[in-house]
Amino acid sequence: MRIAVDAMGGDNAPSEIVKGCIVAAKEFSDITLVLYGKEELIRQEGIEEFKNIEIVHTDEKILSEDDPVRSIRRKKEASMVKAAVSVKKGENDALFSAGNTGALLAAGTLLIGRAKGVDRPGLLATFPSLSDGDTVFHMIDVGANADSKPLNINQYATLGSLYSKRVHGKQAPTVGLLNNGTEENKGSMLTKEAYQLLEKNPEINFIGNVEAREILNGAADVIVTDGFTGNAVLKTIEGTAISMMGLLKDSIYNNGMKAKIGGLLLKDSLKNMKDLLDYSKHGGAVLFGLKAPVIKTHGSATEEPVYYTIRQIRDMLQSHVLEELIDYFEHNEEQMP
Amino acid sequence: MRIAVDAMGGDNAPSEIVKGCIVAAKEFSDITLVLYGKEELIRQEGIEEFKNIEIVHTDEKILSEDDPVRSIRRKKEASMVKAAVSVKKGENDALFSAGNTGALLAAGTLLIGRAKGVDRPGLLATFPSLSDGDTVFHMIDVGANADSKPLNINQYATLGSLYSKRVHGKQAPTVGLLNNGTEENKGSMLTKEAYQLLEKNPEINFIGNVEAREILNGAADVIVTDGFTGNAVLKTIEGTAISMMGLLKDSIYNNGMKAKIGGLLLKDSLKNMKDLLDYSKHGGAVLFGLKAPVIKTHGSATEEPVYYTIRQIRDMLQSHVLEELIDYFEHNEEQMP
Repeated sequence: MRIAVDAMGGDNAPSEIVKGCIVAAKEFSDITLVLYGKEELIRQEGIEEFKNIEIVHTDEKILSEDDPVRSIRRKKEASMVKAAVSVKKGENDALFSAGNTGALLAAGTLLIGRAKGVDRPGLLATFPSLSDGDTVFHMIDVGANADSKPLNINQYATLGSLYSKRVHGKQAPTVGLLNNGTEENKGSMLTKEAYQLLEKNPEINFIGNVEAREILNGAADVIVTDGFTGNAVLKTIEGTAISMMGLLKDSIYNNGMKAKIGGLLLKDSLKNMKDLLDYSKHGGAVLFGLKAPVIKTHGSATEEPVYYTIRQIRDMLQSHVLEELIDYFEHNEEQMP
Repeated sequence: MRIAVDAMGGDNAPSEIVKGCIVAAKEFSDITLVLYGKEELIRQEGIEEFKNIEIVHTDEKILSEDDPVRSIRRKKEASMVKAAVSVKKGENDALFSAGNTGALLAAGTLLIGRAKGVDRPGLLATFPSLSDGDTVFHMIDVGANADSKPLNINQYATLGSLYSKRVHGKQAPTVGLLNNGTEENKGSMLTKEAYQLLEKNPEINFIGNVEAREILNGAADVIVTDGFTGNAVLKTIEGTAISMMGLLKDSIYNNGMKAKIGGLLLKDSLKNMKDLLDYSKHGGAVLFGLKAPVIKTHGSATEEPVYYTIRQIRDMLQSHVLEELIDYFEHNEEQMP
């Protein structure tokens, strides 16, 4: 398994990216990490001893403020572009980046390409189910497409189910449609039409509408939604969790000695809570529906999230979920309008 | 100021509704509360001594599972319908209910009616800004309409600004468009078109796009969005906050004696935190853009939230925000396509 890594993408590149790769390379002898970026900077992290880390030098990189499509087309020597092209050519099996999200979506779609029959790949994110720390759920699309059609949402359901089954070993993952009420007749024109398609989709275990209030409680294994709403929900979860941790900190530090001691006694328990909320443990967001795995992690990712994301990519490659996806959509393409 | 109260709406009706009304009637001698519902049940709470509480007896009520539009048309004797009709006739100045949200939206639109020039009234909710406990922000539409047009979002901006100015005394409230990125060219077809209208709207202080991650940090005084996304964001904030309070409780109670003592020492501080998060203090959600104030509070509302919502209605009536709204949209109707 060969993973193409954009070593220059993200706020902490290349240092933290390379560090995370080193941890992964140490643990998994069955993967080879091919790092695209400035060789001199990459070497500074001390990779000599690892036979399963390779470097492809490149001087250029895509910046966070670059226009996605234009930069992918013009910056042919950028680390992300060269890494994507290597996957396209079959030299590597998957693409990883912490860089410009829009550019990565464009690189995935334009350079690696959609799986035949998939109308729009969706961005799939994995969250911990807070009602039960051991389980996770997936939401797709969390922002690959700003405008989705009912057909897209139905495909997200098939894609998400496949991911849950193959990568997380869930037998018959439940699929819920994110909606503004649980009754069948609820929703926007988009969700009402999507509901009709989902109900008839033989590949999924559709359980109907799910409200945003319930998703963190494990309302369904796979939540499907259009990319605009999914993006808003993902960012609202992040923002609310960060704000509440901030409030909790204030409650402990700005309320006198009694509260400070209370905070000290609770330190370990609160650390566990923070760990549970830290969904970088579950890897990055997968642009799912392409011919190869393309995974994005947070721009601010450090060594640990980078490691978790590489582990996730290895899980994906080992599960052969992509082969199954490609096979399914090739043979069911005629069903799509 | 006469407020028509649907005493039979909500999970705790009529008891908690009447109790909240009693607290408000005691405090505010300048309001009269007209309670629509079963006289016998209402009288059980002991309202005799209050000259500013009146009862209009009615046997029927709208159930939470009733179809909104059908129930409003057919259940002419229902408490909510009679209360709405009284506002329509000018006998009362505002409508309050904790009942079926869809039915209240229908009652507001069909019985009380839209202000001339307002295409679609929006549901406006008020939240505490968590970065600063003293300030609030408003989001509109949080779910009156499942499908919104750019024109609607632009009107929500005018409506939300008016509310922030008149009811909360904000000088030049900032308006942010909820979007999937902050750059001007970001977004769905809907938000891109809405952006163009907002930029040209002379009534508002538009500051551009705002991401969901930032809204609780006080990114803008008024957040405008379509009703589907707004509903999802509102419910995600609620769900995430509830899940996190649950996690915090678990951290304290299920981690041995040390954590329990820590929790005890932190009790007061955590209570403050919970209070800050409790946005029922800021009243209910206003269906804004009608000829009179129509306010919905949570179905599970008890005495306290009912009281706060009545106080909010009084603030609205005293501010004359509705008169200004009606005046503005009447004179600017020709600008609307």
